[in-house]
Amino acid sequence: MATEVDVQPDTHEEIMGATYRALCKHGYAHLTMQDIADEFDKSRSLLHYHYDTKEELLLAFVDNIVGYIGDRLAESETEEPLERLEEYVDRFVIEPGEEDRETFALALLELRVQAVHNEAFRERLATHYETNVQTVADIVADGIEAGVFREVDPDATGEAIYTALVGARMYQVTLGAERASRRMRDRLAEFVVDDLLTDGREPADYAGNGPEN
Amino acid sequence: MATEVDVQPDTHEEIMGATYRALCKHGYAHLTMQDIADEFDKSRSLLHYHYDTKEELLLAFVDNIVGYIGDRLAESETEEPLERLEEYVDRFVIEPGEEDRETFALALLELRVQAVHNEAFRERLATHYETNVQTVADIVADGIEAGVFREVDPDATGEAIYTALVGARMYQVTLGAERASRRMRDRLAEFVVDDLLTDGREPADYAGNGPEN
Repeated sequence: MATEVDVQPDTHEEIMGATYRALCKHGYAHLTMQDIADEFDKSRSLLHYHYDTKEELLLAFVDNIVGYIGDRLAESETEEPLERLEEYVDRFVIEPGEEDRETFALALLELRVQAVHNEAFRERLATHYETNVQTVADIVADGIEAGVFREVDPDATGEAIYTALVGARMYQVTLGAERASRRMRDRLAEFVVDDLLTDGREPADYAGNGPEN
Repeated sequence: MATEVDVQPDTHEEIMGATYRALCKHGYAHLTMQDIADEFDKSRSLLHYHYDTKEELLLAFVDNIVGYIGDRLAESETEEPLERLEEYVDRFVIEPGEEDRETFALALLELRVQAVHNEAFRERLATHYETNVQTVADIVADGIEAGVFREVDPDATGEAIYTALVGARMYQVTLGAERASRRMRDRLAEFVVDDLLTDGREPADYAGNGPEN
């Protein structure tokens, strides 16, 4: 089996793309190497040359999604902590009709449950989780430093934001609670983001007058 | 097979207790009728007389946990919305060393993932979910009526509170994020509960003076 570094960057990306599409279509439980090969433009033997088993391929796939959200945010046009926090939260909303993303979110959840008894998956999913928590914790810390957010514990607040979003998404994809992730976005905006803002905490705001600054 | 109403109340409760203990010990994935029988003080044949299959028994079990949290809260000594909200949130915290509760929470998560492809489980788990959301939504609505909480959407707020707690618990039980459910409790107290309180929104509070009332 070839290790990840042996795979040509283009081929690696194509294999990861094929795996993502296959997971979006078929979910995790009954996914086969053939399902992934069907999404791969090159030969099935090339896929098997790089990955002997479905498990090896999926481990590489989880490695590959670590930091995905952070990378997208790095491409963002704004450095403003409030806007970046809103962009982060918005990333987790699955809108009606986005069935591919729902199936993919469910596949990740299945992997997470599976991972409890599989050390290799568990380690990688923990890294995935911690990276997503760190990304939002960094935004909160930046906001505090810039004086835009009040002094909170950035790590604990970041963890709560990410975990709440994951919980709402789980509700949406397992029980068909349509728009649950969007409602969570709205509640996070109402309770957490609003509460973080230093100017939102000006007495004048609550007294029904305009903000002072 | 006997339907639920045919089962003597005592026997029914004992079977449900045995199922709970078996799930706490063994989880859901590889649970057998024998595991449940091992936790049941009466004969195995009595278990099989009431439930032909593990699936029938587990469906009855999910029916049985619907409203569990609400029933516990109904026994609470207080009618005070703030205290009731705090009791509700505390119910979902799994402390270090509560391995039985962790295994049970994981078993419920496995059931939830399984339920995606099983209409009977899915329906019952949806009822379980909605009942838990309704319980906290009612507390929020009571608090608004009593003037203790500000005017928010009780259903959306209740859903967000419950879903956030479930998300944190999932993080804790699948990835070993110790105390994640306790940290979520603390963040809910800081952001949501604190923000709901009408007296916490008095301008004087934020100006660093004592509350006006």
